[in-house]
Amino acid sequence: MAMDADLVIIGAGSGGYEAGLYAYRRGLKTVLVELSPETVGGNCLNKGCIPSKYMRYGAHLIERFGIMERWGIEAQKPSINYEALKRGRDNVVVSIRENFKKFAGQINLPIIYGRGVIRDKNTVYIEGADEIIKTKFILLSTGSKPSPAGNLIPDGRYILDTDQIWDIEQLPKTILIVGGGAVGVEFAYIFRAYGAEVTLVEVKRRILPVDDIPEDSARYLGRKLKSLGVDIRTKTTVESWEKTPSGVRVLLSDGEQLEADFILLAAGRTPNTEAIGLEEVGVETDARGFVRVDEFSRTTVDNIYACGDITSPLMLAHKSMYEGKIAVNHMMGDESWKRDERIIPKIIYSAFEVASVGLTEDEAEDEGYEVKVGVTSFVPNPKAMDDGENEGFVRIVADEETGKILGCHIVGPMAGELIHQAVHMIRADLDVEFASKAMYSHPSLSEALGQSASEIFYGPISWTKT
Amino acid sequence: MAMDADLVIIGAGSGGYEAGLYAYRRGLKTVLVELSPETVGGNCLNKGCIPSKYMRYGAHLIERFGIMERWGIEAQKPSINYEALKRGRDNVVVSIRENFKKFAGQINLPIIYGRGVIRDKNTVYIEGADEIIKTKFILLSTGSKPSPAGNLIPDGRYILDTDQIWDIEQLPKTILIVGGGAVGVEFAYIFRAYGAEVTLVEVKRRILPVDDIPEDSARYLGRKLKSLGVDIRTKTTVESWEKTPSGVRVLLSDGEQLEADFILLAAGRTPNTEAIGLEEVGVETDARGFVRVDEFSRTTVDNIYACGDITSPLMLAHKSMYEGKIAVNHMMGDESWKRDERIIPKIIYSAFEVASVGLTEDEAEDEGYEVKVGVTSFVPNPKAMDDGENEGFVRIVADEETGKILGCHIVGPMAGELIHQAVHMIRADLDVEFASKAMYSHPSLSEALGQSASEIFYGPISWTKT
Repeated sequence: MAMDADLVIIGAGSGGYEAGLYAYRRGLKTVLVELSPETVGGNCLNKGCIPSKYMRYGAHLIERFGIMERWGIEAQKPSINYEALKRGRDNVVVSIRENFKKFAGQINLPIIYGRGVIRDKNTVYIEGADEIIKTKFILLSTGSKPSPAGNLIPDGRYILDTDQIWDIEQLPKTILIVGGGAVGVEFAYIFRAYGAEVTLVEVKRRILPVDDIPEDSARYLGRKLKSLGVDIRTKTTVESWEKTPSGVRVLLSDGEQLEADFILLAAGRTPNTEAIGLEEVGVETDARGFVRVDEFSRTTVDNIYACGDITSPLMLAHKSMYEGKIAVNHMMGDESWKRDERIIPKIIYSAFEVASVGLTEDEAEDEGYEVKVGVTSFVPNPKAMDDGENEGFVRIVADEETGKILGCHIVGPMAGELIHQAVHMIRADLDVEFASKAMYSHPSLSEALGQSASEIFYGPISWTKT
Repeated sequence: MAMDADLVIIGAGSGGYEAGLYAYRRGLKTVLVELSPETVGGNCLNKGCIPSKYMRYGAHLIERFGIMERWGIEAQKPSINYEALKRGRDNVVVSIRENFKKFAGQINLPIIYGRGVIRDKNTVYIEGADEIIKTKFILLSTGSKPSPAGNLIPDGRYILDTDQIWDIEQLPKTILIVGGGAVGVEFAYIFRAYGAEVTLVEVKRRILPVDDIPEDSARYLGRKLKSLGVDIRTKTTVESWEKTPSGVRVLLSDGEQLEADFILLAAGRTPNTEAIGLEEVGVETDARGFVRVDEFSRTTVDNIYACGDITSPLMLAHKSMYEGKIAVNHMMGDESWKRDERIIPKIIYSAFEVASVGLTEDEAEDEGYEVKVGVTSFVPNPKAMDDGENEGFVRIVADEETGKILGCHIVGPMAGELIHQAVHMIRADLDVEFASKAMYSHPSLSEALGQSASEIFYGPISWTKT
């Protein structure tokens, strides 16, 4: 069977389905191709940000529970029911997935199940469904998969990757997490809150070892995780490991030996660019295997676009959604909306929310800016005090000469929502004068943004200044 | 004793102390005048938004406690320790107050205790301290006090106003709250969560009966409060009341009779404009008793400014802070920063956070706009689902012709922080195209803003459209 379309989207993950809805809204005859009904929503929905945020919220609640006597609420220590946690989590995931499929059905946005392979630049073949679609445009949003690491090959029992962690039958009592990136620190917090002894090893010299998250943010989170009892070991790797009757015994590169129920491998992901016909049609990839795209998310083939995990190591659902929509917009002939990595927020949900957008101080200096930084602590923030969550800070990085906001880095309560104020200001080219004279309700967490901007625009008020 | 200053600020509440810090930062020799060391921070800090937000967070925690089994956290029903709640609350209030005083001391920003009275336009006399200050500028930020209402005269036992409610020795078992505005719905939620039978009466036809909060927001909150067991009676007043051995017996205008431990009167506030020398120096007030100010917060006397509750019925701490800083800025000779009521967010913290900024649909139509509205529910929002707080909505009101964002109205999780994104966009004259093409992290509550904007900019995707 053959059909015609304006646009075939290969992969109905976050980027694919958002782009699909957007293309539908813009009037394109669109077809979504996805491996199976169970994988609609992709990694983020099924095995990533959505279920992990659910569990992370549970961890947050456990922490809240621990201090709620401050609000006059007294109770015995709670017991943990892992089955209930899993059920709640899976309910959310399945609801979102099924609602999306139902919605797509009601608006007649087809989802064809199978593996989409590009035959030529206007033809997609769907293995499994055995369908061929002729199309004007193709959007690739095939996502990524967990990478193995050296001697750590996931087996689903002793070594689990981030696809497998969802299926464990009970909560670990002891766990070794390998990789101190976003996923590693998130699970370290979750399993620690739910009662496990957690060791987190990271090969680099700090957790969250990426240039676009400042040292201070990582350090602040690290201290908190340690205070909660997570054993963080940086500049450390797994030297060797062996099975034991109850799990694994591991020798770390620092000479320490430890036992754990299992190892969670959170050491990066690999783009899914194989066996979908890229080479054949001329879609180029770079040395690391990422699909080359221009500012409109267009690949080296002019009617084929790509979005999300396959375009760069910045594997964020919203990056994919954004690139996918820009791609569709460009297919419609509009060249005004372009990709801009500077406005993509990076948010980690661990013992704190850690959010970054734009340049760090270091990056800004490397780019030749005279940098001014304003930092405001949440410690004295009245709303944060009322909520008993007064840890963290808001850091704004600005160009001294123009006052232009170059970056913003927030650690603490609701950082993942607050950061959007900076995202919008950066995108609209607003400066610290704007942010300083803006309106912030009192009491609010948002006030800390205005205070950081004021510290740059007017200069700091310090406790020692007279 | 006499001293000289650039600026005397009468009233060190939110507006006064924020303006004081700002004036200090800008280099003005500033003196703060406040009634007593216990009233620094004013109504908001001592008897308003700060202690109420604390108790409201406790109410929120109790609600969270009720559903935490969804995250696998199981515990017996908690018991309530009112002493602990009060202690926690007062700790926050006192910390903020003492820190401010300590900070003011360290930067040599004087606070003189007593009643500031204007002698002439360059002279302030401080009763109590018996000091006279000669000054270039005066900023009035004397705040407001609770108003009595008809037959309801606060006595601290049977009828409590919002200054007295903080001192109750135990939580009420039954309470009648008179007034369905921001304070009334906040305490209705708090006392209901902490176990009281709550009746809320409001003379107008709906709760939150002000033009700048849309009907839908009020209705949504009202339904929630009812579902929690709050007995809301609109178009109702207290016909008569009498003392009983255990509290009060009340006859309502709807014929209903009820008993309560006491009545909380939350029926509005009166500006503190008396006995501070306004008439003598020529500072004019309007028919309702508010000080007339221009766009720079300047009164009818050219070197005397006013901010906050005394300038209009919009009695919000951040309005006062904003007006106070604009006043100081103008004293410094800058006319570029002007008051703009459209960017002042109104936030109510009750069973939901209810936030509004700018025009409602009705107001926009009254001003002659062709209005387009985009509404996005939090029900299917993935982050809200993960957090188990997926109720409410984001409503954006825009001008159809230009796409300009005229207002935004949010009910639901973190509405009080999310609204700032709209505040900034309105202030920067950004439109729904900007908000639609902006970047929102996934999953986040903020995504609902982008979706509402997209619904206006591109048109809705409806479930029935084919």
